[in-house]
Amino acid sequence: MPHLSIDHSPELSDESDMQALCQKLRDALVQTGVFPLSGTRVRTHPAEACAIADGHRNNRYCAMTLSVGAGRSRETLQTAGADIFSVAQAHFEQQRSTPHFALSLEIRVADEDLSWKDNSLHLGPVIPDGLETA
Amino acid sequence: MPHLSIDHSPELSDESDMQALCQKLRDALVQTGVFPLSGTRVRTHPAEACAIADGHRNNRYCAMTLSVGAGRSRETLQTAGADIFSVAQAHFEQQRSTPHFALSLEIRVADEDLSWKDNSLHLGPVIPDGLETA
Amino acid sequence: MPHLSIDHSPELSDESDMQALCQKLRDALVQTGVFPLSGTRVRTHPAEACAIADGHRNNRYCAMTLSVGAGRSRETLQTAGADIFSVAQAHFEQQRSTPHFALSLEIRVADEDLSWKDNSLHLGPVIPDGLETA
Repeated sequence: MPHLSIDHSPELSDESDMQALCQKLRDALVQTGVFPLSGTRVRTHPAEACAIADGHRNNRYCAMTLSVGAGRSRETLQTAGADIFSVAQAHFEQQRSTPHFALSLEIRVADEDLSWKDNSLHLGPVIPDGLETA
Repeated sequence: MPHLSIDHSPELSDESDMQALCQKLRDALVQTGVFPLSGTRVRTHPAEACAIADGHRNNRYCAMTLSVGAGRSRETLQTAGADIFSVAQAHFEQQRSTPHFALSLEIRVADEDLSWKDNSLHLGPVIPDGLETA
Repeated sequence: MPHLSIDHSPELSDESDMQALCQKLRDALVQTGVFPLSGTRVRTHPAEACAIADGHRNNRYCAMTLSVGAGRSRETLQTAGADIFSVAQAHFEQQRSTPHFALSLEIRVADEDLSWKDNSLHLGPVIPDGLETA
């Protein structure tokens, strides 16, 4: 952990660069300084069908859930959450200018005694914006 | 919130009208009278692969998780949950008449201090059954 | 319940037999002896987009969340979790031999008072490895 799972309206796959969003949020998680890089996973799951609020055809949602391990203060998590949320707000600036967009973030704390990890990742420097070294 | 996430067997995408289910459940959430319309998101996520109970090829599941904000009594949530569940039961009447269907609902309460929202939705009247005003 | 939801890198749909993993994990859940067969659902949800750790293109993740009903001791859950995790480790032996794989499991306990079930499954013997009786 941290694991950031992003559920969203299926149309956002075309209307926004969700891969770029993942990378921005990965960077934001790293920059909080309170989470391990090796545990960082940001991922998107578009819905197949959905019904949002009043059902207007233009309504879109992006609902983010961040699961973190125990051991950080609520203040630390509130600061980290606010930082992450502001990055998502900036990403969706265009959508937020319409009357049809709903963005949310929730942090939940996992039970460390009921968690298992097996991580073979040998980390290099964080690769910005999806550019890869050869 | 409320956010109702519906995980289901991939075959149900063809065997049932999951968009109609979303709309029925959105209406049911609104009709409880205890949740904000603007926060309502109902969405489906079919599995890619699955193994259900004894593994019979006809087994199907629909597993719903409702995430709500804090501040409602357990009795309120139990009544709301029962209402929502009965709508899903009615929707899946055909599937429930077979020996191969499993329906479930769980409500979880989010931590308000670790939640963020940015909602530009300007609401009109709830649009029934996916019909849209011009 | 138990419901085991498996989020994973989209590439694993091709690079691993995820249906076989579901069946192995279903069998492992049954073999713990502490969960009801009729409530067992194992399912996979590949991400559409993701950003993992340092962003190396070969990075892959498989993040499993097991939701169970209340009423079992933490020791029971820890033993069950360790058993299930070891099955997933064996399945991903090839991936774990690379420096680019991250496997995780988390168990969360649902609130029984806020859970509903409607299960028409008439169970036969567990069908191994996806083979079906005629």
